[in-house]
Amino acid sequence: MATTPKKLKQSDIEKKLKKLPEWNVNTKVTEISRTFPLRSFITGLSFIAKIAVHAELMNHHPDIELSYGSVKVRISTHDIKGLSNLDFELAEKIDKITLL
Amino acid sequence: MATTPKKLKQSDIEKKLKKLPEWNVNTKVTEISRTFPLRSFITGLSFIAKIAVHAELMNHHPDIELSYGSVKVRISTHDIKGLSNLDFELAEKIDKITLL
Repeated sequence: MATTPKKLKQSDIEKKLKKLPEWNVNTKVTEISRTFPLRSFITGLSFIAKIAVHAELMNHHPDIELSYGSVKVRISTHDIKGLSNLDFELAEKIDKITLL
Repeated sequence: MATTPKKLKQSDIEKKLKKLPEWNVNTKVTEISRTFPLRSFITGLSFIAKIAVHAELMNHHPDIELSYGSVKVRISTHDIKGLSNLDFELAEKIDKITLL
């Protein structure tokens, strides 16, 4: 990233969250997260690989928890200890993977 | 898994842990875990893929947390709410991946 992303205001975050009804917002650690149920561990691995492609292209990396029946994705902008546009862009891209 | 693995006694667990000095034991949730530092997200993805092969072959799946600079692996036998031989077998296999 050439420039540090701008920290979003609470009102902007709420507006953006309306377009992502499946995502939870964690106000304590200022992150958004979503848990995706999956039918197998290997399905989860394949899902993570697709997430990784977006993360690398955006140079913006989520925290991912792979368990037997689910993948939990947690997104925040560590540099600003808050949420930026990048977080919502990545969340939208990840949501699109699940539609494929 | 055809049969439920046997729950290990505390003394057996301590003996087995001596052979895995890099692993922590979580006594509250009866699991073992290890955090592997990694130089990139993609390196982490590749590491998880290798773990997944062992997990599938053993039909024994860890919980994995992928972050930008690390992969944390948590292992326990959910069926018995404790640690079994399978957990240590998987930990040893994962340790071998990191030596490659």
